[in-house]
Amino acid sequence: MSNKFGKALSLTTYGESHGNAVGAIVDGCPSGLKLTKKYIQNELDRRRPGQSKLYSRRKEPDEVEILSGIFRDQTIGTPISMLVRNKDAESEDYEEGILRPGHADLSYELKYGLRDYRGGGRSSGRETVGRVCGGAIAKKLLSITNTKIIGHVKSIGDIVSNPSLEYIKKYAEKNPVKCGDPEIAEEMKEKIIELKKEGDSIGGIVEVRILNPPIGIGEPVFDKLESELARAIMSIGGIKGFEIGKGFESSKMRGSVLNDPYRFERNKLKILKNDAGGVLGGISTGENIVLKAAVKPTPSIKKSQKSVDIRNMEEIELEIEGRHDPCICPRVVPVVESMSAIVIADLSLRAGKIPKDKVN
Amino acid sequence: MSNKFGKALSLTTYGESHGNAVGAIVDGCPSGLKLTKKYIQNELDRRRPGQSKLYSRRKEPDEVEILSGIFRDQTIGTPISMLVRNKDAESEDYEEGILRPGHADLSYELKYGLRDYRGGGRSSGRETVGRVCGGAIAKKLLSITNTKIIGHVKSIGDIVSNPSLEYIKKYAEKNPVKCGDPEIAEEMKEKIIELKKEGDSIGGIVEVRILNPPIGIGEPVFDKLESELARAIMSIGGIKGFEIGKGFESSKMRGSVLNDPYRFERNKLKILKNDAGGVLGGISTGENIVLKAAVKPTPSIKKSQKSVDIRNMEEIELEIEGRHDPCICPRVVPVVESMSAIVIADLSLRAGKIPKDKVN
Amino acid sequence: MSNKFGKALSLTTYGESHGNAVGAIVDGCPSGLKLTKKYIQNELDRRRPGQSKLYSRRKEPDEVEILSGIFRDQTIGTPISMLVRNKDAESEDYEEGILRPGHADLSYELKYGLRDYRGGGRSSGRETVGRVCGGAIAKKLLSITNTKIIGHVKSIGDIVSNPSLEYIKKYAEKNPVKCGDPEIAEEMKEKIIELKKEGDSIGGIVEVRILNPPIGIGEPVFDKLESELARAIMSIGGIKGFEIGKGFESSKMRGSVLNDPYRFERNKLKILKNDAGGVLGGISTGENIVLKAAVKPTPSIKKSQKSVDIRNMEEIELEIEGRHDPCICPRVVPVVESMSAIVIADLSLRAGKIPKDKVN
Amino acid sequence: MSNKFGKALSLTTYGESHGNAVGAIVDGCPSGLKLTKKYIQNELDRRRPGQSKLYSRRKEPDEVEILSGIFRDQTIGTPISMLVRNKDAESEDYEEGILRPGHADLSYELKYGLRDYRGGGRSSGRETVGRVCGGAIAKKLLSITNTKIIGHVKSIGDIVSNPSLEYIKKYAEKNPVKCGDPEIAEEMKEKIIELKKEGDSIGGIVEVRILNPPIGIGEPVFDKLESELARAIMSIGGIKGFEIGKGFESSKMRGSVLNDPYRFERNKLKILKNDAGGVLGGISTGENIVLKAAVKPTPSIKKSQKSVDIRNMEEIELEIEGRHDPCICPRVVPVVESMSAIVIADLSLRAGKIPKDKVN
Repeated sequence: MSNKFGKALSLTTYGESHGNAVGAIVDGCPSGLKLTKKYIQNELDRRRPGQSKLYSRRKEPDEVEILSGIFRDQTIGTPISMLVRNKDAESEDYEEGILRPGHADLSYELKYGLRDYRGGGRSSGRETVGRVCGGAIAKKLLSITNTKIIGHVKSIGDIVSNPSLEYIKKYAEKNPVKCGDPEIAEEMKEKIIELKKEGDSIGGIVEVRILNPPIGIGEPVFDKLESELARAIMSIGGIKGFEIGKGFESSKMRGSVLNDPYRFERNKLKILKNDAGGVLGGISTGENIVLKAAVKPTPSIKKSQKSVDIRNMEEIELEIEGRHDPCICPRVVPVVESMSAIVIADLSLRAGKIPKDKVN
Repeated sequence: MSNKFGKALSLTTYGESHGNAVGAIVDGCPSGLKLTKKYIQNELDRRRPGQSKLYSRRKEPDEVEILSGIFRDQTIGTPISMLVRNKDAESEDYEEGILRPGHADLSYELKYGLRDYRGGGRSSGRETVGRVCGGAIAKKLLSITNTKIIGHVKSIGDIVSNPSLEYIKKYAEKNPVKCGDPEIAEEMKEKIIELKKEGDSIGGIVEVRILNPPIGIGEPVFDKLESELARAIMSIGGIKGFEIGKGFESSKMRGSVLNDPYRFERNKLKILKNDAGGVLGGISTGENIVLKAAVKPTPSIKKSQKSVDIRNMEEIELEIEGRHDPCICPRVVPVVESMSAIVIADLSLRAGKIPKDKVN
Repeated sequence: MSNKFGKALSLTTYGESHGNAVGAIVDGCPSGLKLTKKYIQNELDRRRPGQSKLYSRRKEPDEVEILSGIFRDQTIGTPISMLVRNKDAESEDYEEGILRPGHADLSYELKYGLRDYRGGGRSSGRETVGRVCGGAIAKKLLSITNTKIIGHVKSIGDIVSNPSLEYIKKYAEKNPVKCGDPEIAEEMKEKIIELKKEGDSIGGIVEVRILNPPIGIGEPVFDKLESELARAIMSIGGIKGFEIGKGFESSKMRGSVLNDPYRFERNKLKILKNDAGGVLGGISTGENIVLKAAVKPTPSIKKSQKSVDIRNMEEIELEIEGRHDPCICPRVVPVVESMSAIVIADLSLRAGKIPKDKVN
Repeated sequence: MSNKFGKALSLTTYGESHGNAVGAIVDGCPSGLKLTKKYIQNELDRRRPGQSKLYSRRKEPDEVEILSGIFRDQTIGTPISMLVRNKDAESEDYEEGILRPGHADLSYELKYGLRDYRGGGRSSGRETVGRVCGGAIAKKLLSITNTKIIGHVKSIGDIVSNPSLEYIKKYAEKNPVKCGDPEIAEEMKEKIIELKKEGDSIGGIVEVRILNPPIGIGEPVFDKLESELARAIMSIGGIKGFEIGKGFESSKMRGSVLNDPYRFERNKLKILKNDAGGVLGGISTGENIVLKAAVKPTPSIKKSQKSVDIRNMEEIELEIEGRHDPCICPRVVPVVESMSAIVIADLSLRAGKIPKDKVN
């Protein structure tokens, strides 16, 4: 197990889906940052289940308790420990020997022998609570550099949206699918309801834009900006692909088209377009950073699947009951944002781009 | 800068394109591994320029010298230092103030102020020499677990190949584009020659398959197998996207289709297909690991581009002369293989899957 | 701040003296280790204040709650999160602007600007609760290799004991000063009571012996066994010196005397004495590891000291009231043991000396 | 093996005593630092053998070659690779099966099975060449904060010197024993010559003072300043003890005596004495940092010792010929300085105390 992420700013998470609690420790946050429980709670609320009929019915209040690192609503430079208790765990929905296809049941069984099978244990989406706690702090820290991190659901299955940045800002948080285009959001919603009825699930693409990032962050050759972002985001459960800028489309393009040209504008260098997605050679140029994550369909489906029970050594036809999201994309948005925020904050601190005297 | 990769097995690289040398240090390799200079040289030769008219004409012998860590053709557990001198550097092709679009010239200038502008310095593709040196050792180490790592060029621009594993093994090393389908290889070759004539460049997709990987490697939740692979491969210059298994295609799929079902076969668990790409919840299942990397077109093109000279503060139309590959995909293949090998070897050591007593 | 220790087995701690809680997360513990709350509680109880009139009167039950990582009294390979709430904090004893000589008040003020001044905040001895939680797990893990870690108070001021290993095992836990020689223990006790009456404090030396350590642990050249031990133990508050084997005495010795000679005994190599303290060139030889830590006198004393109040910018004569130990050595014993255990367990895992199949 | 030290500024070393070369890579040095080969060579020359009849007769020119990271005599932010070839290696002095008491021969044999037995291989004092290369860069970096690092031999056997800082500055580099008191230096010299005649060796104490260190460096609770220094210095071959400030003497002292009191002087806080050795709670206060390292006597002695030949499985009486120093203390001085410099520079960078814009 390896449950720490980041070098200058680090996030450590713990907790199983049906254990006592999930939580996070953020270490390396400069002292003097104004930080309230309410700020963190707001971010957590964006991830919480039970908000809409599109989501899991698990009813977790997900109330965060701050155990250390904050004094009089300010960070003091010591580790910030945050705790969220598990409340509404229905363990009877899970059976010990059954391997759910597409889940980590098999691989945890192979690696650890022994596992907390209830709700997937550590491999549950509930693990991301800690990531969002950490992301909240990173976002607050990045407010010092006026850096904003905005995510939205770009596509669900083959329903694709192409909203402008203005639209994303305006609409993505206003609909339960977190799509930046309100009309396409409706389409997505219907699709998800349809799949729910069928007892099936669907994947999608989450896009995150990092606006006004610090210039010159990213540490070649192994901790490049895109490398750290890829690592962070591919570590989220259910993510199968990552791209930055034009991503896989680049593979079909010519250099003469993809290269972003330079000009001067009032003696200041200007990059004429941003197909690179804000990064050259692993270092931010100051342009907005644009990344996408491919989210697979929820593996928990009601539809019958071929599987096995390894305790009883028998083959089964599995129909997963329980309270699962037919599409996890909307709830993945704050998680991808959070991991992006942690990477940007960590690399910014490493590059000296968040001067300690600016914090308070 | 952050030039070390890996925890149990680590690779540190150094060197600029037109400096004295490039090189690598591998630390953490168990003692007793049979390792000759010739073995490493073979891998380096696969990456070397000047092998075909498709590639750069830079003529580097790229001869490796082993400085430490090997005694009587065996590793002794101490760091293995490998050195490759730069010989055929034509520095006069580069001008100090010119920012080449799509290159790291701008971002290095912004981050470091001062830079070795000759050939891109540290941001040059020449940096990958060290990666291939490290990859050679990782591959040798993985021979203990009978793990093989095989790469090929899946597509160039919109020319896509779909070779079987047998075809890849048989043909990918036999043609200069490293394509597993000999007919499509011809097409690709022509495309590249055409672009070269036009003074332009093209991207492509490199696929790597890791055959017979150790079971149970990958360290959730932050050093998951796909997360470490993504990080490693996205750290290679010119890579804009990464996917594992069905990758971005997953985003369009239903759970009932994507999930890989289980059955028993002679009392042994069998996974009926491998859309997951060999990994569940960040841990290897033992199925082949399949990953893809999106390679952008070489930014160095002869075609005229809008750019600037920041020393003279003037706008220019840039036509890059010099000895550049119109498509770097074939030469990227051993690099993606190398980084994959290092990740697999590192995670295998961390999981105790390369028992020290098996090494010698 | 840097609150994580260890590579294969890691300990992260958090918490301030008068905040909500102190706690620890242990990551990297193999799955299948039998571990109960009671086992951890026993170790914590050895460190707890209020046990004797020699110690602080602060009455902390120090009850540990396990939040994750344990299922059915066994580890499952996921991070083990442990929480201890602060109960008996008398914050009114502390004043914000006063810098207590010998404490970290000044340096925290200089580094962080803002600090939780109550009871020293993060720099309090209370921080070691998390270390002891982690040490308990490391000790349990080392039971697999039959490695035992035994500490005792070797000296208090100039009262020095020289107990045999048998005496240490028999007597050190039986007296409040944790001295291995019961007669000298009485002397030490009287000394401490005398100093308490004077409102003064005294230092001492804690010795830890690691019995039957795994052979071949320690990673030259920078993570040598003695180097990791020194780092771990010097990170404990109030420790000013570290030595291994003959330590500083070695500096006065001749090679012909200090070198430990070799012989064969029934064809097995035998080391004729152990002045090296169980380590050669940074690697364990299998002999018992013997280390000492110099503990400074508690800086909190009732006797008047010259100091300053930086809020009011005035010079003061400070008499520290409150519930302080006149000699912290006895309570430091389990902490030095814990840090030693973590180092040995971590290095043992890194060297493959705790095979996963032996754990359960 | 673990051959990297440091987080923000890191040193990686490699090389065996009788292999092709020893060397070092420094990563994380900010760009723009003026750095010439000559500067590094000067530091190396202070460590070189063959300078006096007190030292080994091995005649190594120890000429450093810079392979990367420097352009036009300035650092460019990329890894600085430095190479020193081994020239005067007399391998015939060593026999494969013989375990030299006090050396790492036994422990390397136990850990790695296979080893380069010639001259101790990686465990040789020659390994410190890389440390001194790294230390040179760290020292240069610290010149930006006006921090100076000065070492001297405080004692040889029971001959102890107590020079003032002025004396150390004036005399320590002027005599072959590097003692700050010229009269005692003579005594030490005679002692060493006497031991050489007897075929024996002797230990000593090296003291290093870090003058005008940056304020507020050190990262509690695990990367405290004294913890990192201890780790760094205990990783040097032959060091058996470490102390800071009053060190082991503290264990005999009372709080009322050891605590350093505070006063104001022209409204500026003043620490009235420096028994703490420049550090409180793991963080520098700005006072000079004072540390000591206990150096054991060279294990290579001509005097007959009981040992074994594990190839021939026979007991032997060993008389070590070869070119060994009867006392390594003088040559250890630049090594302890170097490791101290790396720690201070690393922690200073981590604390933002070497602003990048001050570098060039």
